[in-house]
Amino acid sequence: MSRYKIIVEYDGTPFSGWQRQDECDTVQQRLEEAVFPLIKTRVTIYGSGRTDAGVHALGQVAHFDLSNYNNCSKIRGCMNAHLSNIPISVISVEEVDPNFDARFSAVERFYLYKILNRRVRPSIDVNRVWHIPYELDVNKMNEAAQCLIGKHDFSSFRATGCQSSSPTKTLNKISVQKRGDIIAIEVAARSFLYRQVRNIVGSLCFVGNKKWSKQNFAEVLNAKDRTKAGPTAPACGLYLLNVKY
Amino acid sequence: MSRYKIIVEYDGTPFSGWQRQDECDTVQQRLEEAVFPLIKTRVTIYGSGRTDAGVHALGQVAHFDLSNYNNCSKIRGCMNAHLSNIPISVISVEEVDPNFDARFSAVERFYLYKILNRRVRPSIDVNRVWHIPYELDVNKMNEAAQCLIGKHDFSSFRATGCQSSSPTKTLNKISVQKRGDIIAIEVAARSFLYRQVRNIVGSLCFVGNKKWSKQNFAEVLNAKDRTKAGPTAPACGLYLLNVKY
Repeated sequence: MSRYKIIVEYDGTPFSGWQRQDECDTVQQRLEEAVFPLIKTRVTIYGSGRTDAGVHALGQVAHFDLSNYNNCSKIRGCMNAHLSNIPISVISVEEVDPNFDARFSAVERFYLYKILNRRVRPSIDVNRVWHIPYELDVNKMNEAAQCLIGKHDFSSFRATGCQSSSPTKTLNKISVQKRGDIIAIEVAARSFLYRQVRNIVGSLCFVGNKKWSKQNFAEVLNAKDRTKAGPTAPACGLYLLNVKY
Repeated sequence: MSRYKIIVEYDGTPFSGWQRQDECDTVQQRLEEAVFPLIKTRVTIYGSGRTDAGVHALGQVAHFDLSNYNNCSKIRGCMNAHLSNIPISVISVEEVDPNFDARFSAVERFYLYKILNRRVRPSIDVNRVWHIPYELDVNKMNEAAQCLIGKHDFSSFRATGCQSSSPTKTLNKISVQKRGDIIAIEVAARSFLYRQVRNIVGSLCFVGNKKWSKQNFAEVLNAKDRTKAGPTAPACGLYLLNVKY
């Protein structure tokens, strides 16, 4: 038995998210189907985490086992050939220790959220950004966001349906930066609650448009109450950047 | 009579280029149709230059005349509403002097060419980059490119069908830079020959993969012969960035 770690890029737009579901097109299923021709038997591919419908990945990580050794570059070639008309690319394949687990061995996950902040909707970045037509104050958003760093009860930013045993998570980093018309929000943590990043982004936009002060935002965190926070930012602006082990 | 300057962004993928043609979907025609509801009469929109089928623009500039004054923000709103399901966005509308001409008043045009230089094809940037799977030496490409700066006979990089009266053009700037997996080639000139940028990029890739030295590349320029140069890079990697007046 050999275990393989893969790094995967995908455009989340056409998929019902990462996780295999009956009668839905999912990234996990497409990857599993792409391994099938190699070994003619069904394989389960385990991701570092689920991404929602419409969420993109530049560096999703997953693992799977094959009953006998296969050359890594052959696996990558086979999978990509099978995925050729599907917006999923297997960037790398690496044989790893059988104890490696894409989900449980992860020590840090990095996400990027992209907002297009200009009057006019995107034509090139359709489905790649959240378009916000009114001006956001990026400095105020970045200042407010800093209160999230460290260990907190993130209930205010936890979506219903979250399967995490506890609402307490430790955020290692959050930054809000302007790059031309794009506002890039980068976050890092060992793990996240369900929709935590999108819920944080939705609330930060209330700071950006001056509906809330930095103090109001901190109060929202401290309320530990989802109904006190802002809306969930749309999936299309979110990218799983990479996972550290 | 009032003259308006517009700045336009578009995804070139679904279009047969800028210029209106019978039975083809073109950017010029879509923009002209988007002005129609405002004044109920046909308007011709003049671009700073034609872009080929598949070429994108972040800042194409065009002008048109309306028989009486219209509020610029109303024009922009009307055009974007009419273009809502089409990957063209009118970024800005400005009333200009009647002597302003999007093509002839331009003093400098800026293009970007994006190569995705990694083994595996893109999934997020499909139709947005030229994918080259073998490694290119960016420093050698940048060094070789510098011989193009200044006034030269660019016949070696001029496609058949070019309507320019002379093959002599002055290149103000060319740089080849690596940004992650992306090789970004930026060029600036008052004007370009037909497919000049794509032909230059195709030849620079021969330097990048060490088929040609810097000297070979300079000889290709000096040969003034299209058959001595490399292939034409595909349209999907090219972006008209902006036009200076």
